Amino acid sequence: MNTAPINTKGCLFLVPTPLDFGCAEQAPITQVLPEATLACAAGIRHWVSENAKTTRAFLKRVAQTHPLLVPLPEQSITELPRQVHKKGDHLSGFDGKPLLAAALLGHDVGLVSEAGMPAVADPGSSVVRAAHELGLRVVPLVGPVSLLLALAASGLNGQNFAFVGYLPQDAVERGARLKQLEALAHKTGQTQMWIETPYRNAAMLSALLQNLQGATRLAIASGLTLASADIQSRSVAQWKKGLLGPDNHTPAVFAIGP
Amino acid sequence: MNTAPINTKGCLFLVPTPLDFGCAEQAPITQVLPEATLACAAGIRHWVSENAKTTRAFLKRVAQTHPLLVPLPEQSITELPRQVHKKGDHLSGFDGKPLLAAALLGHDVGLVSEAGMPAVADPGSSVVRAAHELGLRVVPLVGPVSLLLALAASGLNGQNFAFVGYLPQDAVERGARLKQLEALAHKTGQTQMWIETPYRNAAMLSALLQNLQGATRLAIASGLTLASADIQSRSVAQWKKGLLGPDNHTPAVFAIGP
Repeated sequence: MNTAPINTKGCLFLVPTPLDFGCAEQAPITQVLPEATLACAAGIRHWVSENAKTTRAFLKRVAQTHPLLVPLPEQSITELPRQVHKKGDHLSGFDGKPLLAAALLGHDVGLVSEAGMPAVADPGSSVVRAAHELGLRVVPLVGPVSLLLALAASGLNGQNFAFVGYLPQDAVERGARLKQLEALAHKTGQTQMWIETPYRNAAMLSALLQNLQGATRLAIASGLTLASADIQSRSVAQWKKGLLGPDNHTPAVFAIGP
Repeated sequence: MNTAPINTKGCLFLVPTPLDFGCAEQAPITQVLPEATLACAAGIRHWVSENAKTTRAFLKRVAQTHPLLVPLPEQSITELPRQVHKKGDHLSGFDGKPLLAAALLGHDVGLVSEAGMPAVADPGSSVVRAAHELGLRVVPLVGPVSLLLALAASGLNGQNFAFVGYLPQDAVERGARLKQLEALAHKTGQTQMWIETPYRNAAMLSALLQNLQGATRLAIASGLTLASADIQSRSVAQWKKGLLGPDNHTPAVFAIGP
């Protein structure tokens, strides 16, 4: 069905990584990445990366299970520019095609973010879009995706849901946005999800308890895939009785619904 | 952080399954499920399932990699009632608590759907919600999630997206809904995703080309995780030049954005 001349060009592989980036606790990589993902990652030597240092740390873990095609010092790792990180990949106007030059020469290229699935709640979509424009085959590999693990475990509606990225940092704007998302969830039944920088977790929980209605269901998932994973799903009224949210070091996903 | 008395009760594990359900092509299960997921599934003997027959087929594949705690004939597999399948898990008013009786006796319970992640674009959220109400620990395991693989590979905005389930079957209603989703995507930048029963894939593509604007980007992903996977992401105008969509046997995910 693919009409592009895939045989002469390399593929763009979307390579998921463990969710324990920056966490004290790390499990063996085979616990969360299946065999096909590990074998594929070990065979790539051209990378487009959110952060080269974490990509090298990831490849060191891969190498413990599968020998790398070329040693780490010879891996080519190109970082996405800062503008893509800061503004979001769809607002930056960034052209990802130059990052895929190796694929046009027949080499497979891997796209990786710091944790989880690249181009989902993370930069990278400009590179995927460029790959389609260049007629490359795009192959997403299986691995952990924090948003979907959180959604499945929330008990909220998984047949109609939205992820809206980050909320405003300003308290007044954030409160207004929360009320807007809550109204949308109640009107349409659509679960609303977002993430927050870990050091603002406690501030986010305060804002939620201050702005949402007591009957709204609030789920907070943190430390996903780790032994310390904690997933709580209760009404806002129940949260107000003293349930503890995640600490200010652990990445968390927030979700609300009727 | 978990204030529930987790030690005396079993956990509810959300067990993802391969996406090759009903497909002629099947790869070894280790290709798409990581070690921790397989080991956990092999240790469970109480299941809540979308379809008992497919759950038994899944457990046979698991058994090829990890010995099951109890043989297949002794596994307890309880199907979700039809009302949950038909109406969607959030409209049925179904109380999932009776399905979790084994967990209250200290046994772990596994929740599975026919393919992919339970409770995401599949029934199961009523059972997860019941688990939280009973104070059970809910543990989502890593595996393939077609929606997120499709989103990552689409090149569409992965930092703001929605999944809206199935569209209306009636041609006029479907056309109106498509125009509504397209307007929302252009206004907010939010990627809109949905799925369709495979035998309507060709009808869906016709409806898309008939109703959407030429500049709208349309991505269709089918056969995800299979060797025959096909992911095309082009403008509607480019699709109209004769790109082929998925056949009427392969599950597909549809996504549009600006």
